[in-house]
Amino acid sequence: MKSELDAIMKSRNLDGFIVFGNAEHNPPMYYFTGGGHVSHATLIKKRGEAAALFHGDMERDEAAKSGLKLMPYSKYAAEDLAKKANGDQLLASALRAELMLKDMGITSGRVGIYGTYELSGIFGMLSHLQKLMPEIEFIGESREDSIFMRAMETKDESEVARIRKMGKITTAVVARVREYLTACDVRADEVLLKEDGSPLTVGDVHSKIRLWVAEHGAELPSGFIFSLGRDAGVPHSGGTPEDLMTLGKTIVFDIYPAEAGGGYYYDFTRTWSLGYATPEAQELYGQVKEIYDKLMDNFDLNTPFKQYQQMTCEYFESKGHQTPLKTKAPVEGYVHSLGHGVGLNIHERPFSGLQVGDDQRLGPGVVITSEPGLYYPEKGMGFRIEDTLWVNPNGMIERLAEYPYDFVLPMKNWKK
Amino acid sequence: MKSELDAIMKSRNLDGFIVFGNAEHNPPMYYFTGGGHVSHATLIKKRGEAAALFHGDMERDEAAKSGLKLMPYSKYAAEDLAKKANGDQLLASALRAELMLKDMGITSGRVGIYGTYELSGIFGMLSHLQKLMPEIEFIGESREDSIFMRAMETKDESEVARIRKMGKITTAVVARVREYLTACDVRADEVLLKEDGSPLTVGDVHSKIRLWVAEHGAELPSGFIFSLGRDAGVPHSGGTPEDLMTLGKTIVFDIYPAEAGGGYYYDFTRTWSLGYATPEAQELYGQVKEIYDKLMDNFDLNTPFKQYQQMTCEYFESKGHQTPLKTKAPVEGYVHSLGHGVGLNIHERPFSGLQVGDDQRLGPGVVITSEPGLYYPEKGMGFRIEDTLWVNPNGMIERLAEYPYDFVLPMKNWKK
Repeated sequence: MKSELDAIMKSRNLDGFIVFGNAEHNPPMYYFTGGGHVSHATLIKKRGEAAALFHGDMERDEAAKSGLKLMPYSKYAAEDLAKKANGDQLLASALRAELMLKDMGITSGRVGIYGTYELSGIFGMLSHLQKLMPEIEFIGESREDSIFMRAMETKDESEVARIRKMGKITTAVVARVREYLTACDVRADEVLLKEDGSPLTVGDVHSKIRLWVAEHGAELPSGFIFSLGRDAGVPHSGGTPEDLMTLGKTIVFDIYPAEAGGGYYYDFTRTWSLGYATPEAQELYGQVKEIYDKLMDNFDLNTPFKQYQQMTCEYFESKGHQTPLKTKAPVEGYVHSLGHGVGLNIHERPFSGLQVGDDQRLGPGVVITSEPGLYYPEKGMGFRIEDTLWVNPNGMIERLAEYPYDFVLPMKNWKK
Repeated sequence: MKSELDAIMKSRNLDGFIVFGNAEHNPPMYYFTGGGHVSHATLIKKRGEAAALFHGDMERDEAAKSGLKLMPYSKYAAEDLAKKANGDQLLASALRAELMLKDMGITSGRVGIYGTYELSGIFGMLSHLQKLMPEIEFIGESREDSIFMRAMETKDESEVARIRKMGKITTAVVARVREYLTACDVRADEVLLKEDGSPLTVGDVHSKIRLWVAEHGAELPSGFIFSLGRDAGVPHSGGTPEDLMTLGKTIVFDIYPAEAGGGYYYDFTRTWSLGYATPEAQELYGQVKEIYDKLMDNFDLNTPFKQYQQMTCEYFESKGHQTPLKTKAPVEGYVHSLGHGVGLNIHERPFSGLQVGDDQRLGPGVVITSEPGLYYPEKGMGFRIEDTLWVNPNGMIERLAEYPYDFVLPMKNWKK
């Protein structure tokens, strides 16, 4: 949680940090501002003190919505800095950054660098700043284990409320896609037809999904998956737009929208087969649902997440599938890990791979996915069920949006 | 143009460069890949040689679409690197980067760093890499004058074709908004009504614009402006969602969509007044249109862009308005510069401010905006006309999309 940042900074021996970039699509900045259209901002925090947001004058109103201490860039006379820097823009930026750090009481020690932004200018500016402030050591951390990834691992209730709201939008879009598909007419060769009588393609469904997500004011910053048959058997295939929508093939629909501006994500998957399913597909879906339910019954407070990956692998191995437990990087069977944290990043701590540390646990406040699946591209089928779950402050595991688990979706205008 | 990059690198004394990040929403990477869903890629180019794209194995197909020389990361055994780095992720990344640079024949000299990406990991990795390769000097450039901004200043015909296509989409959306607004019923107090009889708000129009842009498969990565009355008088106001759409007030509609994935932009503005306009608004609009037309008649090959900013200021001063020519940072009158280059960045070279260099010219291949405007927030009105123009290889100035310049839009169901 954000309230833990000072302690996490201390454990990393960081005396302060700088976050560069826009308030949107920039998790460490968004974490402080809560969104808003503040561009080219800088956030500086000294350990143990409140953070301040440096911003352009024209974005005063948006910056004020963050509730942070505000420091307009205009405080630092641009013309004087440019003169002092002999017109060297990067040096002028570094001179300004020096004044900003001093205003925040940071003149020495280890200072972390964060944010998603254009690398070139920041790298050039920091090269100058390092010479101006030799007492400071600027630190970069690996994304997967930065102080932000640590703090974001647990969520407060206001963050969970935002994720829950995205869950409502996600399931509303999924319901609309189901409604649309099952109302289609079907040709003799089992291909779905559009209102105008032409065949419905996977790409047509992709367009509808994009449109309906946009209508809810949400975004798909990391894309989505709506894939059919063989593509459903490849976990990272988004689907082939030209393919015709056809009865009796597995559809993996994995959708992970975020609040507009790059805010909190929700992550959700259902597997469908329109009209009917082959007996083999029915059986494999049944296995995925069985382990999904078993996991829901077994998730327990403070247990390392990877124990459930182990449980999932053992279950699938007992049914004769390959898994990462006994096969290195399998391409058939159960080929990925069980889940991951979800927040301002679509993938964040805790992770569930068999090799991750025991410290990645179902502690109070984590928001995770549970997403067992089976993949058989050569058989033209794939399966995944995924919901986003919260370990609430009472230690109970709560699903953040409800949606049915039907596999075969009956078609309104078609019977076998 | 991209073909000039080697010469530009030479002029900056750069021996090579690295671009980090995703292929989407990352102009220097997109410039080489042309789009596609390649994530966490690295592009390396040695001066005088072809660039290579380093990518994850799972993204092979998308990477191949770029037509670039491909280098899968799997070539560099991750387990060996992790062992050699004692589990330090950043050091392991640096060890891999060292091998990648060596494979590209780069072992010394000045190497530029570019791309939009998470700063922390790259900064930390480069700190290690600098120690591993002390013969290399890593260089950051200011965004406004990087080698990419220089190369991108002129476009080849395939780039112009993409911008032109975005112009078609832009004007189609604008036409649909006009159609929608002018078909609304109007209440006795001149407020527009929705289909259900409730008042139409600026926010409702914003939603329609977002939806219609999404329907065309385009994006609004930098937002858009649809602002009314007083907001129209503030160039950077996006519009107040709660405001009711009302007859006889100026509407500034500035829309700048990009190809999906962060590709080429188009930039376009019209000013409307629904039903009728006040005589003062009519007069001011007429002035903006007059100088817009005068500029179109005068744009000339290889002339410094700022000469037209000068011409615009002089025209508006002659009509009694404040401009940047005689007033520092005016808030009323003509308050900005005339235009800017448009491409993979919404604002790029050439720029037109009175203080920019004479080298920012209307050379063959530049794509620019011309966007004179007048702003009177206290009078509750603002005006801007903007089109995107191309200086074609024959030196002729060509508007990349046509759309009418009507100011007062007659309402279908309302008469004064």
